[in-house]
Amino acid sequence: MDTPAFDHNLFAGCAARIVSHTRELAAKGWTPATAGNFSIRMGPGHAAITISGKDKGRLTEADIMVVDMANQPVATHHRPSAETALHTHLYRRFPDVGSVLHTHSSNQTVAGLLHADAGRVRLRGYELFKALRGHDTHEAELDLAVVPNSQDMDALIASVDALLDTPNTWGYLIAGHGLYAWGHDIAEARRHLDAFEFMLGCELDLRRLRA
Amino acid sequence: MDTPAFDHNLFAGCAARIVSHTRELAAKGWTPATAGNFSIRMGPGHAAITISGKDKGRLTEADIMVVDMANQPVATHHRPSAETALHTHLYRRFPDVGSVLHTHSSNQTVAGLLHADAGRVRLRGYELFKALRGHDTHEAELDLAVVPNSQDMDALIASVDALLDTPNTWGYLIAGHGLYAWGHDIAEARRHLDAFEFMLGCELDLRRLRA
Amino acid sequence: MDTPAFDHNLFAGCAARIVSHTRELAAKGWTPATAGNFSIRMGPGHAAITISGKDKGRLTEADIMVVDMANQPVATHHRPSAETALHTHLYRRFPDVGSVLHTHSSNQTVAGLLHADAGRVRLRGYELFKALRGHDTHEAELDLAVVPNSQDMDALIASVDALLDTPNTWGYLIAGHGLYAWGHDIAEARRHLDAFEFMLGCELDLRRLRA
Amino acid sequence: MDTPAFDHNLFAGCAARIVSHTRELAAKGWTPATAGNFSIRMGPGHAAITISGKDKGRLTEADIMVVDMANQPVATHHRPSAETALHTHLYRRFPDVGSVLHTHSSNQTVAGLLHADAGRVRLRGYELFKALRGHDTHEAELDLAVVPNSQDMDALIASVDALLDTPNTWGYLIAGHGLYAWGHDIAEARRHLDAFEFMLGCELDLRRLRA
Repeated sequence: MDTPAFDHNLFAGCAARIVSHTRELAAKGWTPATAGNFSIRMGPGHAAITISGKDKGRLTEADIMVVDMANQPVATHHRPSAETALHTHLYRRFPDVGSVLHTHSSNQTVAGLLHADAGRVRLRGYELFKALRGHDTHEAELDLAVVPNSQDMDALIASVDALLDTPNTWGYLIAGHGLYAWGHDIAEARRHLDAFEFMLGCELDLRRLRA
Repeated sequence: MDTPAFDHNLFAGCAARIVSHTRELAAKGWTPATAGNFSIRMGPGHAAITISGKDKGRLTEADIMVVDMANQPVATHHRPSAETALHTHLYRRFPDVGSVLHTHSSNQTVAGLLHADAGRVRLRGYELFKALRGHDTHEAELDLAVVPNSQDMDALIASVDALLDTPNTWGYLIAGHGLYAWGHDIAEARRHLDAFEFMLGCELDLRRLRA
Repeated sequence: MDTPAFDHNLFAGCAARIVSHTRELAAKGWTPATAGNFSIRMGPGHAAITISGKDKGRLTEADIMVVDMANQPVATHHRPSAETALHTHLYRRFPDVGSVLHTHSSNQTVAGLLHADAGRVRLRGYELFKALRGHDTHEAELDLAVVPNSQDMDALIASVDALLDTPNTWGYLIAGHGLYAWGHDIAEARRHLDAFEFMLGCELDLRRLRA
Repeated sequence: MDTPAFDHNLFAGCAARIVSHTRELAAKGWTPATAGNFSIRMGPGHAAITISGKDKGRLTEADIMVVDMANQPVATHHRPSAETALHTHLYRRFPDVGSVLHTHSSNQTVAGLLHADAGRVRLRGYELFKALRGHDTHEAELDLAVVPNSQDMDALIASVDALLDTPNTWGYLIAGHGLYAWGHDIAEARRHLDAFEFMLGCELDLRRLRA
């Protein structure tokens, strides 16, 4: 295919922000054994994204590549991860999404496996709902959806796509496979990610304590 | 309104101390998704306090502002957090309170939700009681109050105010929303905060273990 | 009283080693709210020990003082912690003890409260028994004693003294108050401390899992 | 015995890589009280390995020695750990194994004790199976074997040897004694180690939550 042009200064800035956040997330243990992938939209047609299989605690800007919205590598010999398709799916569906973060923490993995049959984790009474764009009170319930894991990306995207009609949806779990969270920019995606992780941790702990 | 004068050197010192403690607390994971706010009294009429919505792990002195005891910003275009009112409430009621710290750890959030109906967490037998000003033995019970969460600050302040008649009260939980702790200066407020967090963690663990 | 002489170069080396280990232990969260105290023997008549009430995460060599074996400060205006008596008790009883470390972790506090009535935590099957001087196999049971907490140091020392007849005893818990561990030098005391903390953490987890 | 020659530049590179990974693993708390040992193969006849009894958080390149495949020290006065035999056993049996890592985390210790009678931890549904060489889907079960602990290295090796006929086996637990993991190089051994530790942590948590 032709190689579309992209702005190299824009790319350098995106890569630096991805590396900074990814190393922080790796230090928390949310990207075990090279798990996780992280992207920033570079415009309508491109995104900067982590290369597959890298140790996220040792990530450098050379480990970030550009893909187009059909998941094809742009001006690089690197191959994108199969999960790149879950990032571009969100960018194609929501023009105002600017960043997608996928982590694989213990709480996310366990909560996904425990709630796989229910298809959602129901959250109640958290002040931290207010950290999510469009939510302004703790006096509500909030469902975080859980989709079944699959090695077939098209099947996975079909499961996810059905969830996204609910306004102000900013994340989902894949059973045994972690969390996807997103936002208008990487700071907001990170705030959403941190809020979901925190509430999942509390929810699991409440379940242990109420047993 | 008129802009009251304040001592800029005093402010710079307060801001530096707030930033130092806040970054340490953020590193512990007690301020997820921009949660938490932190203040030092600057005299009878002013306090230095964190600006709303900042990532506490990246806080700098530019993220600290001055408010008066009616929660109005002083000599700044920044807007204070709604929760500023919970800080000034304590400064107005207790002239010897010099610092107020509000964190939002997992233990604090979970303990508040679990004990919301009881209205208090009852602590027993901790040597760490002695870390709280005015307490000199572990041979006692100590109640940490839990108030219901509310988006209405006046309602929240009314709940809190009723708790403060008990002498040597140095903290309270808001259900699903974390802990407020205070002291004569920021070092003492921090010691009180760390002692409450530690005892809440132990208490939750004892509940898991005795189940 | 007269001020006995001590070797200032020896003291400086001891203080540096205490500060180094204490800051590491503080970073693990085992000295909440200024809890914990740490000493190295300087000879038959003196020990270097942390001053009472200091934030262990910010400890410097100015926070270390010298005491004699009757718990009196030597050549300093600082006052020793009441718990200094638990250190000198071990130095007086065992001439080959060279360092005593007292921490106050969550596992130590919780295990002490849970096992206070039993008077001991029974450990079984840990390879880490071999980290304790004089123990060379995992094929044994090992009891870590728990004594009741008291604000009366003489009462506490009487409880402890009765435990120390068992050969190769290197630690005890005080209920709700943490762990004392010791060894021939600070590296060995630290290895014993780390081994007890680790086995207590495993033991509490096994109890949660076997419930 | 004769001292076989080895390549000192090769050794220096191996030692540096061992120190780098070991210090990271120590910082996670997976090598308590000097536990753990770590090696890289230097060719058909030699391996670089950590000296017994060193504090792994303070490891330097002077704490790495060379052994031959009969567990004899090479060109050094240091004595290897008894557990060196578990490393050379893997190197002798599998010519493509390039690194062996032995850690002793709380999850590994507890999972080994809990599953000692069953002889294995059965894992199900983890995306992280794909981090293990030769495994390409989460849609499977994977057993991590548990062997009984022994102070007799020959007995331990006999227990282990029987497990290794299963293709793509990359680790085992010793009850109360931690995990051995390996790979074609140290990066792969580390990825395998991190994946096993993560899945063991999730598995223990699921057991607590499903109680």
